[in-house]
Amino acid sequence: MTEPDLTYVFGGRDPIAEVLPGQVLLTSTEDCFGGAVLSIDDLPSKVCQGRFNPVTGPFQVPGAMPGDTLALHFAAIRPARDWGMSAVFPHFGALTRTHATAMLHEPLPERVWQYDIDTTAGIVRYRARHSDYTVELPLDPMLGTVGVAPPGGEVRSSIVPDLHGGNLDTPELRAGTTLYLPVNVPGAMFSLGDGHARQGQGEVCGVAVETAMHVTVVVEVLKDTLTPVPRIETDHQLISIGVARPLEDAFRGGYHDLVLWAAQLTGLDVLDAYQLVSQAGRAAPGNVCDPNYTMHAAVDTAVLHGVTGYGGVHRRLRDVGRTVPADVLETPPGTAFGTMR
Amino acid sequence: MTEPDLTYVFGGRDPIAEVLPGQVLLTSTEDCFGGAVLSIDDLPSKVCQGRFNPVTGPFQVPGAMPGDTLALHFAAIRPARDWGMSAVFPHFGALTRTHATAMLHEPLPERVWQYDIDTTAGIVRYRARHSDYTVELPLDPMLGTVGVAPPGGEVRSSIVPDLHGGNLDTPELRAGTTLYLPVNVPGAMFSLGDGHARQGQGEVCGVAVETAMHVTVVVEVLKDTLTPVPRIETDHQLISIGVARPLEDAFRGGYHDLVLWAAQLTGLDVLDAYQLVSQAGRAAPGNVCDPNYTMHAAVDTAVLHGVTGYGGVHRRLRDVGRTVPADVLETPPGTAFGTMR
Amino acid sequence: MTEPDLTYVFGGRDPIAEVLPGQVLLTSTEDCFGGAVLSIDDLPSKVCQGRFNPVTGPFQVPGAMPGDTLALHFAAIRPARDWGMSAVFPHFGALTRTHATAMLHEPLPERVWQYDIDTTAGIVRYRARHSDYTVELPLDPMLGTVGVAPPGGEVRSSIVPDLHGGNLDTPELRAGTTLYLPVNVPGAMFSLGDGHARQGQGEVCGVAVETAMHVTVVVEVLKDTLTPVPRIETDHQLISIGVARPLEDAFRGGYHDLVLWAAQLTGLDVLDAYQLVSQAGRAAPGNVCDPNYTMHAAVDTAVLHGVTGYGGVHRRLRDVGRTVPADVLETPPGTAFGTMR
Amino acid sequence: MTEPDLTYVFGGRDPIAEVLPGQVLLTSTEDCFGGAVLSIDDLPSKVCQGRFNPVTGPFQVPGAMPGDTLALHFAAIRPARDWGMSAVFPHFGALTRTHATAMLHEPLPERVWQYDIDTTAGIVRYRARHSDYTVELPLDPMLGTVGVAPPGGEVRSSIVPDLHGGNLDTPELRAGTTLYLPVNVPGAMFSLGDGHARQGQGEVCGVAVETAMHVTVVVEVLKDTLTPVPRIETDHQLISIGVARPLEDAFRGGYHDLVLWAAQLTGLDVLDAYQLVSQAGRAAPGNVCDPNYTMHAAVDTAVLHGVTGYGGVHRRLRDVGRTVPADVLETPPGTAFGTMR
Repeated sequence: MTEPDLTYVFGGRDPIAEVLPGQVLLTSTEDCFGGAVLSIDDLPSKVCQGRFNPVTGPFQVPGAMPGDTLALHFAAIRPARDWGMSAVFPHFGALTRTHATAMLHEPLPERVWQYDIDTTAGIVRYRARHSDYTVELPLDPMLGTVGVAPPGGEVRSSIVPDLHGGNLDTPELRAGTTLYLPVNVPGAMFSLGDGHARQGQGEVCGVAVETAMHVTVVVEVLKDTLTPVPRIETDHQLISIGVARPLEDAFRGGYHDLVLWAAQLTGLDVLDAYQLVSQAGRAAPGNVCDPNYTMHAAVDTAVLHGVTGYGGVHRRLRDVGRTVPADVLETPPGTAFGTMR
Repeated sequence: MTEPDLTYVFGGRDPIAEVLPGQVLLTSTEDCFGGAVLSIDDLPSKVCQGRFNPVTGPFQVPGAMPGDTLALHFAAIRPARDWGMSAVFPHFGALTRTHATAMLHEPLPERVWQYDIDTTAGIVRYRARHSDYTVELPLDPMLGTVGVAPPGGEVRSSIVPDLHGGNLDTPELRAGTTLYLPVNVPGAMFSLGDGHARQGQGEVCGVAVETAMHVTVVVEVLKDTLTPVPRIETDHQLISIGVARPLEDAFRGGYHDLVLWAAQLTGLDVLDAYQLVSQAGRAAPGNVCDPNYTMHAAVDTAVLHGVTGYGGVHRRLRDVGRTVPADVLETPPGTAFGTMR
Repeated sequence: MTEPDLTYVFGGRDPIAEVLPGQVLLTSTEDCFGGAVLSIDDLPSKVCQGRFNPVTGPFQVPGAMPGDTLALHFAAIRPARDWGMSAVFPHFGALTRTHATAMLHEPLPERVWQYDIDTTAGIVRYRARHSDYTVELPLDPMLGTVGVAPPGGEVRSSIVPDLHGGNLDTPELRAGTTLYLPVNVPGAMFSLGDGHARQGQGEVCGVAVETAMHVTVVVEVLKDTLTPVPRIETDHQLISIGVARPLEDAFRGGYHDLVLWAAQLTGLDVLDAYQLVSQAGRAAPGNVCDPNYTMHAAVDTAVLHGVTGYGGVHRRLRDVGRTVPADVLETPPGTAFGTMR
Repeated sequence: MTEPDLTYVFGGRDPIAEVLPGQVLLTSTEDCFGGAVLSIDDLPSKVCQGRFNPVTGPFQVPGAMPGDTLALHFAAIRPARDWGMSAVFPHFGALTRTHATAMLHEPLPERVWQYDIDTTAGIVRYRARHSDYTVELPLDPMLGTVGVAPPGGEVRSSIVPDLHGGNLDTPELRAGTTLYLPVNVPGAMFSLGDGHARQGQGEVCGVAVETAMHVTVVVEVLKDTLTPVPRIETDHQLISIGVARPLEDAFRGGYHDLVLWAAQLTGLDVLDAYQLVSQAGRAAPGNVCDPNYTMHAAVDTAVLHGVTGYGGVHRRLRDVGRTVPADVLETPPGTAFGTMR
């Protein structure tokens, strides 16, 4: 991963490459520290030069226009290293004063943790700093940050989640899922990064198990199709992501979209959908530390008589993703990509 | 269930019965409508006379004193009817203006849904009101409201969740779990009710699948033991429940307690525990509609090297609960109870 | 002030005296520390035995019934001492972690400040603790806590503000104003206390310049008259008080009521009133530290063509208050009272 | 005002002109509708083409570098028209569902109000839409939106307030005040607009009395001087502006900065300053409708022994502003400007 392929914002940057609708993109991402934290003695406040959360991109999708929806199916998200880093650092996280929640306390101390990542065993290994406690946690790779250029000519820091996606920091964004984002500018101009070997729900200390990733994405454009909030589809679930502060507004945003999406797909009256989703819905915080909080609302498609979103595009892209030869998936890719339509 | 056994507040009421530490309580609860909603034509605003959420109790536990912890192990929570009711009603729920979130819109219309409950098949059946859409959802019985008398001489509506428990409305409070609450007054004076045949995470419309329940509870008192927030223990998880508005404060409250609880049980330094729980924690909203919001934070005890809370009381109570003969469990009980120590 | 006249809750207590509608009540209140903080070396956490915010009452108003409004006109609020106390203490205040906003920081240190109160000069004198800095601030006496018994059989701590009034902590509650509260139980059962020699808007550290007060109140009951939120009327303003968390919900609650109140009094269409109040309204936080936050919304009655609330009761009570002989007002009163109708 | 001088973002635009430190800028601003709402029949959703809140700029200040502070003294803010417009429109305002606070209600209807502005009499005249009610309100001109280019390469919509200023929407930003903003990019690149003939505190319906303005600004750069949040200084007050959601975080942000600023200027210990500001502080919401909420915290400099911020720059710029000849101030200026150092 070379610096020219990394950016710290969504919007306002020239594309590093084109990906056609229907193509499969094989690319790589750096960790949220730009790879600068190499040991537990590398304090992010010292070694990162104030720059956090680089993303790879932007990628331009010819033909994508405002009013369309960009569908990104994550065929694979594989750790590119056998180690990951996490940290507690000043003015970040949910259990400390921050720039947004200003208080008179001294900040919490800064500390770094290094994890082993074992992709074969499917685990990440935590090691305490102040004792010899260790424990293995399930490996569950995801991307914290995937987004498009925002509307209105805005350029947003990659730290920020909003309706253009960005730093959603939800564990739901794992391999096998399709992310839907609105297209706001010609070419969509999507970027991705901030891989997590795993993350707790809410990312309470503000930092996950951060690592570089190899990512395989099937790209599609759904013409003249609006997507009001970032949405994820899995083989069995519809997921809407609310992005707001305070957290109840993120909760509202996710469920509001899910109720209307479910009503649209099933033909249910809106109040009937509201009732059904109230009993069947699941919700969890993605992050409660970024400039906007995120919270997803999900429902099993079985509850909705097996509907699929956007006319079944998730299943189609999933099947495309499965055609990528294993040896291609195993090749550390740079930003190579190939047509798989 | 007769009215004298029901109350609409926590605190300030004479006990309806005593339960000794170590005893098993077999009792029943009414639904949140006091059983007054019998068909989809019974609008709660009309038939409930402004009274909602009756709880059965209070039960006095001799010997329980302020500074102790009350442990309630739910050996069984079984629907007492083959139907449940839900509703959307004015000024309640997360996607509508409420008394707390005042707006100039007209309220949403009032509507009732009736569900079939099939305990043998383990399902509840949803039926749309404006179409013939039906679907089966998994039966997952829980109690929405369990609490003790609050501290400071307060008497709180059963609608309110707070540190004394009350209307926590979390699906995590199902059979097989142990709830820990602080004892604030001599005898603890606990009550329970508000059974849900199932509930979505966040209870977005404000009402679950409400039904009467038969409940079997093993009661224990942990002397000189503080419990800062309501906690739940299962065979595999520690759960802390945050209760606050805005929702991020409920999130903070749950995780803050979980971090300190995990640190205490494992001997981990607090920042080491903060880091570990950040990667392993799960969180979900219970309700985002009551006067306080609730959100739980949970961690698998496997991550904590298999620790158990409170010296293993959960496992001990669970084993006691398993000794209750099935035919006793099957007997609709009123408020009968027997010693099982 | 003797202990029997003090209580720490609203609701559930027998009255200490009766006050007839139209009577003038002369009474006294203790400070929020119960008078136990006598010097800067008396730390509240040590000397207050965990009890804060005593109020004088409850007073029963014969004839007041649920559905009525209680009007309390504050003819005089006079410091009963020539000193006041303030403090910063752990887990309280807006710029520190609290029980509701849980964080992992150590709490801020506890510290007490003593103020001189000079009623003749109309000033309170601040003295720094860590230097010899002093400054005089305008004396502006107010009551932090005035409320009635809450509805639904609840008993609420005097620390809590809600729709029954209570710990509103707004500087707007000074002499010359009329407070309107809903009557929830027969006799209304109102109590008052928590005098502040002055308070900043928002009470950011959580404690004002606390002192005992002599209070003269003209009491009236408005039959069959609903008051949705606590309201204050002055000679020139209508004020509605929102009580909620998060703070924007308190903001909404105050303005929502003010818009509807203005529409009702002027005959303006609701959207026309919304527009007018949007341009003419003033708003400020009362407290951002109590279990509920408060925020008032105000509009000059001149903007509303000189309307008065509740048929002019404020002006009538104000005129009654002015008939109280000065020597009576100057007499430290205990809980004496006399008819002034 | 020609379109080339207007922009809808902060950051990422070439300057329209240079202003040297010490110079006086005479410029004009359009209203938030871009001047497109000319009568009560012009619905913003129809006539504004989805573009709101144009600002004039950016102006480049040679020599201003990151780490400096930009001081903008508003010598004059004069309505450029004898009419202003306001509106209620869908999904905007504090008492309606919005994109951030999603609900299932239909939006409130859209409606426009036209005000007369009489600069000689110093009034704006409100006219109801659904009756013949009119009333005069005091003219109190202010700028809703003044900001610099944000840090980190971001480009932000002019609708958004944040630490770079932007859509602060506080009535405190009137003539006679000095606004301090951090410089984030070389040249500072400031823009201004969104004039309000007057605005209520909190801007509850989301729209003030919007009008074009002639603005006279004295510009200064304070080298190597950090400004953590937008600050305003008047002849008698220090004001810090908190920008965040939820509203209590904006409250915290304003008071947190004010406490530290007061401590720095007076030499008071931080807790001593916290205590003093708690008793003397004033606070009010600016907007509770924009993507971030704003709330100011203020203290009289008399309370701080007459200190002035930034070494007295406010008084110096104020004196410069007073040297501008009245006939220059009266000349509608385009974007003319002249050196006044």
